[in-house]
Amino acid sequence: MRILILLMVFFLTIGNVYSQDWKNFRANAKRMEDRILKLSEFGKNPEGGVSRVAFSEADIQGRSYITTLMEAAGLQVRVDAAGNIIGRREGRDPKLPVIFFGSHIDSVPKGGNYDGNVGVIGSLECIEILNEQKVTTLHPLEVIIFSDEEGGLVGSRAIIGDLTEDALKVVSHTGKTIREGIVAIGGDPEKLTEVQRKPAEILAFLELHIEQGGILDSEKIDIGVVEGIVGINWWDVTVIGFANHAGTTPMDQRKDALLAAAKLVDSVNKIAKSIPGRQVATVGRIHAEPGAPNVIPGKVVMSLEIRDLSKEKIDQVFRKVQESAKQIASDSGTTITFSALDVTAVPAPTDQRLRKLIDESARSIGLTTKALPSGAGHDAQDMARLVPTGMIFVPSVAGISHSPKEFTHAKDMANGATVLLHTILCLDQGAFP
Amino acid sequence: MRILILLMVFFLTIGNVYSQDWKNFRANAKRMEDRILKLSEFGKNPEGGVSRVAFSEADIQGRSYITTLMEAAGLQVRVDAAGNIIGRREGRDPKLPVIFFGSHIDSVPKGGNYDGNVGVIGSLECIEILNEQKVTTLHPLEVIIFSDEEGGLVGSRAIIGDLTEDALKVVSHTGKTIREGIVAIGGDPEKLTEVQRKPAEILAFLELHIEQGGILDSEKIDIGVVEGIVGINWWDVTVIGFANHAGTTPMDQRKDALLAAAKLVDSVNKIAKSIPGRQVATVGRIHAEPGAPNVIPGKVVMSLEIRDLSKEKIDQVFRKVQESAKQIASDSGTTITFSALDVTAVPAPTDQRLRKLIDESARSIGLTTKALPSGAGHDAQDMARLVPTGMIFVPSVAGISHSPKEFTHAKDMANGATVLLHTILCLDQGAFP
Repeated sequence: MRILILLMVFFLTIGNVYSQDWKNFRANAKRMEDRILKLSEFGKNPEGGVSRVAFSEADIQGRSYITTLMEAAGLQVRVDAAGNIIGRREGRDPKLPVIFFGSHIDSVPKGGNYDGNVGVIGSLECIEILNEQKVTTLHPLEVIIFSDEEGGLVGSRAIIGDLTEDALKVVSHTGKTIREGIVAIGGDPEKLTEVQRKPAEILAFLELHIEQGGILDSEKIDIGVVEGIVGINWWDVTVIGFANHAGTTPMDQRKDALLAAAKLVDSVNKIAKSIPGRQVATVGRIHAEPGAPNVIPGKVVMSLEIRDLSKEKIDQVFRKVQESAKQIASDSGTTITFSALDVTAVPAPTDQRLRKLIDESARSIGLTTKALPSGAGHDAQDMARLVPTGMIFVPSVAGISHSPKEFTHAKDMANGATVLLHTILCLDQGAFP
Repeated sequence: MRILILLMVFFLTIGNVYSQDWKNFRANAKRMEDRILKLSEFGKNPEGGVSRVAFSEADIQGRSYITTLMEAAGLQVRVDAAGNIIGRREGRDPKLPVIFFGSHIDSVPKGGNYDGNVGVIGSLECIEILNEQKVTTLHPLEVIIFSDEEGGLVGSRAIIGDLTEDALKVVSHTGKTIREGIVAIGGDPEKLTEVQRKPAEILAFLELHIEQGGILDSEKIDIGVVEGIVGINWWDVTVIGFANHAGTTPMDQRKDALLAAAKLVDSVNKIAKSIPGRQVATVGRIHAEPGAPNVIPGKVVMSLEIRDLSKEKIDQVFRKVQESAKQIASDSGTTITFSALDVTAVPAPTDQRLRKLIDESARSIGLTTKALPSGAGHDAQDMARLVPTGMIFVPSVAGISHSPKEFTHAKDMANGATVLLHTILCLDQGAFP
């Protein structure tokens, strides 16, 4: 009998490492919300959100607050040469690859309190629970706060070795270049090669994030299992008509560039809706020249953006838009040209095994799930090019994001952190074959 | 026989005043074109037109050139308190009301060489022909070069007593206020009441002008008999949707203000075309907020302009646009509101007897005519509120105006001046009952 108990203890300690009790581990919603509120103090704006753009004083203060939390949770904290904050918790076997997870705390100008922050506070919550439960994982864990996500995924691009000299010259919202900004937060742009990680060093990357869309909220679903981060293509669309006197030019003698552009805006929307799938197409910017009420516009320049998880779908939508533009131009006596802009992101599918693991982790604790693409860009899209990557979404109330009105309920944040923790522990216990 | 001859001479001198030979009088196309070219030197722009905005140095030089021509033609020239240049040629009976005609020489920025100028050079041409033919009219004649037509019909508003204190405060293209501009060209804003004319002083006002539209040119018609100057109504149209993330907001969850605005732009065009008549409706200015390629526009403000000779027609078009907007707003989850701007011009019909006289004058010398509205504003629209007013159009090649590409053939300018002269002489000989 004593031998049997010893064997069981041995098995639990070495074989499964730690008790199956972890299935009962739950994130602390109250602690998470308190920390979100505290973090919201740094760069808070009068509208109730934050303006904590990367490299600003508010960003530096927010990073300091998070660093304090990380150190208090026993993590070994360092800032890498790209300004990423990385906190490490050693596992039992230092030779095993790391389980990597995190998000960002920088915001857009006039942003909200949840974008990025939920993933950071949620990752720390996983560490807190492991500490409270006295669990030491087999694999080392690393929590990352990526630098300057909103300004172009700076930290994650450095990790995958894709932060170019040109990118460092870009001027950020603070007025500093990315290069200067990295220095301001304790990085060293001359040592970026040291930031790069090798795939073999990382078992998987996981990111918890708010959806920033309204699907989970409107369908009352707890957890979004992200299928991937959509690809993005941008074009400048130029419509050339003929500017003329709005009083003296009869309706049937006009080459009205704005009328043609309006027909195309309508057509872009109809095309995006006419194809089965979740692709989106948007005209967000429009400029008509000369732009006077009494002159028929002779020229319109507008933006076109198409996003989808599949490059083929993006191409299909664009081809249909081009066909429609050809017809509109012919009917209206205008010319319509498309100029592709170099701000494209290729679709980044998540790892299928991780999707399954996230889904099962959520369902096993009674949460509802839905697979969906991420329409927004995330550091996870860079990480997906390097290592198996998974992404967990929690609901955004009314789908509002990049706005002070952005909101996610504490229970949803906690659900997300619990699913993140369970997914980490499944991975740690050898869920990957 | 001698008595018979004396009677005939008496009759010709007193009855008909001067010989019916005037039916053979023709404007000199070469002289007119030379003068147009000379006038084009003042404020000429690199594109081949003129930038001779009112009160500019170029305007002052152009006025000086015209004054020299007027004085050389024997006119008594004065500048009134509103800066109008008026040249008088006495008639046989100083008690008779004046026959008044003219146009303007100021231009829009980057304007052409014909808008206004053809009417001024054409009016002077009438005086030159009368001088050459040694004809003295019964009525006094007055040629007027109105001040600052393009900046808001300044000179003609002063003549009808409608140049308000507020109008004098408006800043013109030169940066000078209208008040300062009037001083710069030799007027006196403190004495504007002296500029006002009484209806009894003026028999009729006539203006020769280029069409600025393409009807006469495309239909190969020599002379346009202007039915009136259209009324103009302006609105600001505001579409309120909901700004949201263009990547995360599914197509069916959007309240896209630009999509709704685009449908309305299309609808405005369809409505203007669907009603019989020559009304025009234009959206010339559009602004979408926040105006980023990756954000669904939450707000659009655009202009709406409707013009027609009939106030009822303008109202009818606007009602239909409002109905359409209501439907679009309801379908798209947006709100659309219209705010009328105080830049309206009421329709100004020309005098029916003068239309007939102009038409007959043209046809009697073998020119083709067409009755048509003026879609553009002119000093004639102010004068029509004071005295019987007629307006003569000559073709604009391809309908281009307010552009350096504006062009009118010399033979068409001469046709217009000849019709103006014949109309003046018909009036002089008692064509008005």
